[in-house]
Amino acid sequence: MSDITLDQANTILSAAFDKGRELGLKPLSIAVLDAGGHLVAFARQDGASTLRPQIACGKAGGALALGVSSRKIADMAAERPSFIASLGPISPHGVIPAAGGIIVVDGYGEPIGAVGITGDLSDNDEACALAGIVAAGLTAQG
Amino acid sequence: MSDITLDQANTILSAAFDKGRELGLKPLSIAVLDAGGHLVAFARQDGASTLRPQIACGKAGGALALGVSSRKIADMAAERPSFIASLGPISPHGVIPAAGGIIVVDGYGEPIGAVGITGDLSDNDEACALAGIVAAGLTAQG
Amino acid sequence: MSDITLDQANTILSAAFDKGRELGLKPLSIAVLDAGGHLVAFARQDGASTLRPQIACGKAGGALALGVSSRKIADMAAERPSFIASLGPISPHGVIPAAGGIIVVDGYGEPIGAVGITGDLSDNDEACALAGIVAAGLTAQG
Amino acid sequence: MSDITLDQANTILSAAFDKGRELGLKPLSIAVLDAGGHLVAFARQDGASTLRPQIACGKAGGALALGVSSRKIADMAAERPSFIASLGPISPHGVIPAAGGIIVVDGYGEPIGAVGITGDLSDNDEACALAGIVAAGLTAQG
Repeated sequence: MSDITLDQANTILSAAFDKGRELGLKPLSIAVLDAGGHLVAFARQDGASTLRPQIACGKAGGALALGVSSRKIADMAAERPSFIASLGPISPHGVIPAAGGIIVVDGYGEPIGAVGITGDLSDNDEACALAGIVAAGLTAQG
Repeated sequence: MSDITLDQANTILSAAFDKGRELGLKPLSIAVLDAGGHLVAFARQDGASTLRPQIACGKAGGALALGVSSRKIADMAAERPSFIASLGPISPHGVIPAAGGIIVVDGYGEPIGAVGITGDLSDNDEACALAGIVAAGLTAQG
Repeated sequence: MSDITLDQANTILSAAFDKGRELGLKPLSIAVLDAGGHLVAFARQDGASTLRPQIACGKAGGALALGVSSRKIADMAAERPSFIASLGPISPHGVIPAAGGIIVVDGYGEPIGAVGITGDLSDNDEACALAGIVAAGLTAQG
Repeated sequence: MSDITLDQANTILSAAFDKGRELGLKPLSIAVLDAGGHLVAFARQDGASTLRPQIACGKAGGALALGVSSRKIADMAAERPSFIASLGPISPHGVIPAAGGIIVVDGYGEPIGAVGITGDLSDNDEACALAGIVAAGLTAQG
């Protein structure tokens, strides 16, 4: 299986925004990256602030950079703040230590891309990312 | 009139991709930025190479940065290459001197955003950007 | 087919260095990147100057960024110097317009990585890259 | 004595990977830099995540940048987090405060290069770096 497709990415965006509306969340910004960390699709809802594209990409790209979800990176940052902080300047999208960035894997557990969402509480951002991944018939990294 | 909306941006993406398919173009990547140069929506068709997100943003963002289309910036670069080259490193999205980046204006001629497209010949990229802007009922900067 | 493996990358390095010795070339530096532009393997022969790692990565990474060989990028730079120059600051590895950077493709023509070599004349660098790709049983982008 | 050679660097890589296999570690990424902080050799095992090249270089390069191991830099970061954080953006490879980056010295205690490893727990990364240095008949900075 290869990189996530644009069709799959669009399904993720659509379903994640639906989930956000269902939960009554603030305006969301959603990035879908391929396995190499390159942007496939992005959308920012009206009213979201200006850095949201970079935060969404930094959650997804940071996850791919380290091979774990951005929630796990937040845990790592709590234990080793200086280590995680040191990675931002050397990572193309930065490394954002907050839930909402999830790696998407193929049947062998290999990354085919990642989703990053920002705008509401991190837990809510992550719930929307998972809803999007499921709606596209894809699998979040366990 | 304020910034371009996500709905308008999605219409631009959809219509520009339609135009690309109609013309039989290579895979396109399309960025829509708000008036401040911040990403509203982006999509990269399957098979496009990895730098396309940055090139699309750099055409649109460079246009907003200088207040003219990226086609005009290409003309400027032909006359004053060192000047245009000096702007890339100080511009958030860079400044790409090639057609395909168009400013979208309101009824008073004020920018409300910009569209940047890359993937085929620059003239074709620009034709798709214009088709998208028209489809959204918006106006390209004259 | 997925990304190039470390074993394949090591075979490319070994065979490309052999080719360099056979041709009596200056010290070479060789980078092998995966399809996303991330370094898999690199080696710099004794006596090579300090920027060679970045040049090797910039030939391979620039090729992946635009989807064509760095020889083709050199041709593009001859016709449109300002356009190619504008891409360096927005590309993770830069974009080096000189032969020696070659995309490696799978059976469907999809990129699985790239090789970049620097140190001697660009034509010689490229000959070594091709020799390495062939030795690994892989295919250079046509 | 001068810079570490490519032959020595390759011995370090080979022995460090052997040690990782012996200990049953996760996929490792290993960088060997010369005394000036310029990459001599690098390899990333299959399955390692995308930022590993930068982290390996940042451990080794940070060690050379400050003249102490990256383990010592982690200790410094615990005491003076803002100081260490401030160095990342001004250092070519960043400065990674985590064990696994070791300076290699000559008979006079002068640096001839450095090794940086990432992929498993920092202590394990460091054990592999030391094994590689010993296997090459070289000396780690005390």
